[in-house]
Amino acid sequence: MGSGDRTLRVEIRVELKPGVMDPEAETVEKSLALLGISPVSRVTTARVYVLEFTNMERARADALAREAVDRLLANPVIHRVTVTPLLD
Amino acid sequence: MGSGDRTLRVEIRVELKPGVMDPEAETVEKSLALLGISPVSRVTTARVYVLEFTNMERARADALAREAVDRLLANPVIHRVTVTPLLD
Repeated sequence: MGSGDRTLRVEIRVELKPGVMDPEAETVEKSLALLGISPVSRVTTARVYVLEFTNMERARADALAREAVDRLLANPVIHRVTVTPLLD
Repeated sequence: MGSGDRTLRVEIRVELKPGVMDPEAETVEKSLALLGISPVSRVTTARVYVLEFTNMERARADALAREAVDRLLANPVIHRVTVTPLLD
């Protein structure tokens, strides 16, 4: 079933490449230590976007999601991206 | 094996509850339409934190992660949180 009335969802996970500064993660690390929630040896963060498509074939939805990554959601210099079709 | 020299990781996914405004998602929706990447019927976002623990039992790592959620990473009024132990 690649089409129909149902909703297709694609999850896009954008992480920073190793070696790229992650100030939000550093802030979380420091705050956890200040709160006494320790030892946490490392924190990393990621941004997730879930795109929903209706009445579309899976292949086209996946292609649109990849185009969204390339043209809007990620910068290949600093980001590592995982695109995962979600099965509902 | 609940302890040892290995690293335990816990993934914390923070989403907005249904009905809570998500301006970032709205901006992505508008930008995708402007770029001609359409039709995307809906965009949702989530923030992911991965906490790493070394030389710790799984149960304690999970408890620290949940404390981090309750005291720092999420607001129960607006956020829905999923805590997932990662198996490496």
